[in-house]
Amino acid sequence: MPTLLDADQTARVHASFDAQAFMRTLDARMTGLAAGQCELSMPIHAAFAQQHGFLHGAVVTALSDSAAGHAALSLMPPGSSVLAIEYKQNFFAPAVGDTLIARAEVVRSGKSVSVVTAKAFSIAKGVEKPVGLLVATMMTMPDAA
Amino acid sequence: MPTLLDADQTARVHASFDAQAFMRTLDARMTGLAAGQCELSMPIHAAFAQQHGFLHGAVVTALSDSAAGHAALSLMPPGSSVLAIEYKQNFFAPAVGDTLIARAEVVRSGKSVSVVTAKAFSIAKGVEKPVGLLVATMMTMPDAA
Amino acid sequence: MPTLLDADQTARVHASFDAQAFMRTLDARMTGLAAGQCELSMPIHAAFAQQHGFLHGAVVTALSDSAAGHAALSLMPPGSSVLAIEYKQNFFAPAVGDTLIARAEVVRSGKSVSVVTAKAFSIAKGVEKPVGLLVATMMTMPDAA
Amino acid sequence: MPTLLDADQTARVHASFDAQAFMRTLDARMTGLAAGQCELSMPIHAAFAQQHGFLHGAVVTALSDSAAGHAALSLMPPGSSVLAIEYKQNFFAPAVGDTLIARAEVVRSGKSVSVVTAKAFSIAKGVEKPVGLLVATMMTMPDAA
Repeated sequence: MPTLLDADQTARVHASFDAQAFMRTLDARMTGLAAGQCELSMPIHAAFAQQHGFLHGAVVTALSDSAAGHAALSLMPPGSSVLAIEYKQNFFAPAVGDTLIARAEVVRSGKSVSVVTAKAFSIAKGVEKPVGLLVATMMTMPDAA
Repeated sequence: MPTLLDADQTARVHASFDAQAFMRTLDARMTGLAAGQCELSMPIHAAFAQQHGFLHGAVVTALSDSAAGHAALSLMPPGSSVLAIEYKQNFFAPAVGDTLIARAEVVRSGKSVSVVTAKAFSIAKGVEKPVGLLVATMMTMPDAA
Repeated sequence: MPTLLDADQTARVHASFDAQAFMRTLDARMTGLAAGQCELSMPIHAAFAQQHGFLHGAVVTALSDSAAGHAALSLMPPGSSVLAIEYKQNFFAPAVGDTLIARAEVVRSGKSVSVVTAKAFSIAKGVEKPVGLLVATMMTMPDAA
Repeated sequence: MPTLLDADQTARVHASFDAQAFMRTLDARMTGLAAGQCELSMPIHAAFAQQHGFLHGAVVTALSDSAAGHAALSLMPPGSSVLAIEYKQNFFAPAVGDTLIARAEVVRSGKSVSVVTAKAFSIAKGVEKPVGLLVATMMTMPDAA
């Protein structure tokens, strides 16, 4: 069972997500949040396609990275922000359908370094299909005073 | 010295790039192309920012991935397209300034699997700064007949 | 619940593992096997240490990679062998204690490309501690006739 | 042109390498060192083979990782040691022949985080062949007082 965040922590994670202009450009929303877990969803839009008309892989990465970062941020102390120092993305299948979902989970939470996985799924006619796996290394950055 | 492509190969690589709607959305252009090498450039626009106002890391990945894919495609036989099966991105510094550039180079070209690196740079007031390194595994996909 | 392999498939996976001289050098044994899953164990020996006396990270990778490869092989048709084309390893903590375990699971099984994760744990005084996560891309290689 | 290290820095890097028992087990030697660069070599020995008799991929990773770590260490201040927090390895071809070489170079040197690439080559009958590329994230660890 996911552990719920308190109201302050929830507000801080949402504030960080809401401040990402690129997530608004993608029309992404936060559809799930718990301690060390975050789910983001976005419509699959033709403006973000690659050369065969499927969603560009880097958009799968964008949603997965943002989900991973906010999953990590949910475990960080107040006055911190999160920075991805690197990630690795595997692609399983093209993302086709109407919706892309990324579900992230912290697998190792350290004081300065955390490791987070994010699985991406596309939904077509109500059926979810796995499309990728991201593993990210996130750093805790103290906000400038 | 880079090896020049012939007119047909050049046209095929450009056609693939021009077909990526997401690259148009990012306002990216192909600014360099040779055998096994590709350079892409885009303006750094506020619509693609993360929570601190810097360019979102996944946009650095998007430009680097597309440069890497088209560098690989430049070495593939006619009737092929390119598919990224996975990549790894390291970030060196935030991308600040007015322009993002990705320069990709094939480091291992195989019949079905190629490995490509792409270095990303941001330009502020005419000064280039390295911002990331991507390593991608690309597959040669025969076009459906 | 893991799905059991039949006797032929079990024999083929064991034969591949037994043929890895490096696994014998590490004194590694296969301690678990099911469809798409494999567990390997080895004693933590001073001959494989890094500069601080902990087990060298690349040994964690070796056991994880071999577990991942044999998890993938367990799902491949007879007459195939498995080849890692790339992997990514994250380290969580130094491996200290007397035993290293790697538990691998196929997360995407394709005809030619599979993706496998492997979690590594060290055991000290009977207590397991996570020490790393590997994500590998494995190819199915038809054996030469 | 590589920048030479002074005698103290050279001694510190060698001391770290000499303290890695696993490198002795592999019979690896440091065959090149400069500021931000390190080359290691080892004989290709049957005890480290995989199931087809080629050198096990994780041994390629081991030599590459150690070369990368010592390349990073060469730029770190006295009183530091180096820790790989993650790496990604691509394989180009099986390592066959009599010698394996790993050549590492720091591509981004930061106060706490560095990024290093290492290319591996096998030598058969005097001919070098590229066998892999590793990209590693290294952290600077202050030695305990």
